[in-house]
Amino acid sequence: MSETLPDLSSTPRLMVAGPLVAGAALVLPPAASHYLGQVMRRQPGDLVRVFDGASGEWAARVDSVTKKAVTLRLVAPSAPQELVADLWLCVAPLKRGRIDWMAEKACELGVARLVPVLTARTVVDRLNLDRLRAHMVEAAEQCGRTAVPELAEPMKLAALLANWPAGRQLVFADESGGAPMAHALMGTAGPAAILIGPEGGFTREEAALVRARPETLAVSLGPRILRADTAAAVAVGLWQALVGDGAIAG
Amino acid sequence: MSETLPDLSSTPRLMVAGPLVAGAALVLPPAASHYLGQVMRRQPGDLVRVFDGASGEWAARVDSVTKKAVTLRLVAPSAPQELVADLWLCVAPLKRGRIDWMAEKACELGVARLVPVLTARTVVDRLNLDRLRAHMVEAAEQCGRTAVPELAEPMKLAALLANWPAGRQLVFADESGGAPMAHALMGTAGPAAILIGPEGGFTREEAALVRARPETLAVSLGPRILRADTAAAVAVGLWQALVGDGAIAG
Repeated sequence: MSETLPDLSSTPRLMVAGPLVAGAALVLPPAASHYLGQVMRRQPGDLVRVFDGASGEWAARVDSVTKKAVTLRLVAPSAPQELVADLWLCVAPLKRGRIDWMAEKACELGVARLVPVLTARTVVDRLNLDRLRAHMVEAAEQCGRTAVPELAEPMKLAALLANWPAGRQLVFADESGGAPMAHALMGTAGPAAILIGPEGGFTREEAALVRARPETLAVSLGPRILRADTAAAVAVGLWQALVGDGAIAG
Repeated sequence: MSETLPDLSSTPRLMVAGPLVAGAALVLPPAASHYLGQVMRRQPGDLVRVFDGASGEWAARVDSVTKKAVTLRLVAPSAPQELVADLWLCVAPLKRGRIDWMAEKACELGVARLVPVLTARTVVDRLNLDRLRAHMVEAAEQCGRTAVPELAEPMKLAALLANWPAGRQLVFADESGGAPMAHALMGTAGPAAILIGPEGGFTREEAALVRARPETLAVSLGPRILRADTAAAVAVGLWQALVGDGAIAG
């Protein structure tokens, strides 16, 4: 028997391990249990929202709260699984604060897949993928997404280009220029990826490799030199507004 | 007698106190002297770039380096004063890291004026304007701008609206919705401002006040809930791309 759900917009929202099925019990792991029980002080009977990245968003009721674990019971679906626009963001890793921020923004702005790309001028040698993923999960919890961007294994630019999928447009926002991005994107459709270089940019050889791909659309983000994190956020925002789901959202 | 300037693109770039006149000597203040002399290890005879926010960018030659001060001598203009699109960014202050980041992005993306707006849900009670300005100056040094956004004194939303300048479009990116921003902006021109609310959004009463202004254009930034810093960067980026200087940049 289904129940009518109240307004859940101010209830905590958590990513959990799926699958999600009506009536199922969920024992939350320690960090999520601490957050709900100790930080948010939820009590048995309170409603929260959960999603697993594949089953949409569900209302769940707190079943029990102990110091060790919070248990939830799934009530009913509260939002459908989102349709994700097929956009990749390929970025050279940046120093810690900026790459974390970029991962957060990639999730907020609805990227489907984040691809760390190693380039000649990439100075970050170690990339903590678990930390990046945690930033994306937190962003998904806050921005209402029911999907988290897939995080690809870091790969070299040459390998990325050699294995580039046929039919996926490669939007290349390089300092060496191109058509204004808004104009270049008008009328485009289908799978796409945005490629953003490291601080210091791509080398001339790298830029030539990228431009040699038939899928490449070289664009300009305007007259100023943008930091890589700014360029990524603005390019993804423009793509979503002109080609992706922002173009039709009311 | 003028000299031909070499490629200056990899030389340090500093904002200094003007005015800038050929042949004039500049004694740099302690922080800038330390940066050029100790961090960047510039020597007498080296070229650097300076700007004062009003006189374009100038090439300058290091004249003397002591522990106390670096002295420069202005050589010749290296870039004209930029034309700044007449865009304000009006934002409710955010907690420290996010408002610093927003100030940096406002400068990178070519905003003319940053206006801190106090709203019902603004939780930041103290705003360090000097620190915000320092972030904007650093961004201008790095992104090639010759102007730094004017930083307005924080003001209450009601006062901002009561004194709104006639003819300045007010782009209102509120969660309560509007036309997709890219569509709404097409064909618009002239002075504009983007208004972004605090975490938690505007109250219903505040949103009604904003919508009552005849200059208001309510827009949507897409189907996801964006953090205020993300919304600001994407909205400014979209405006520059569709109305401002990104629309014509090659």
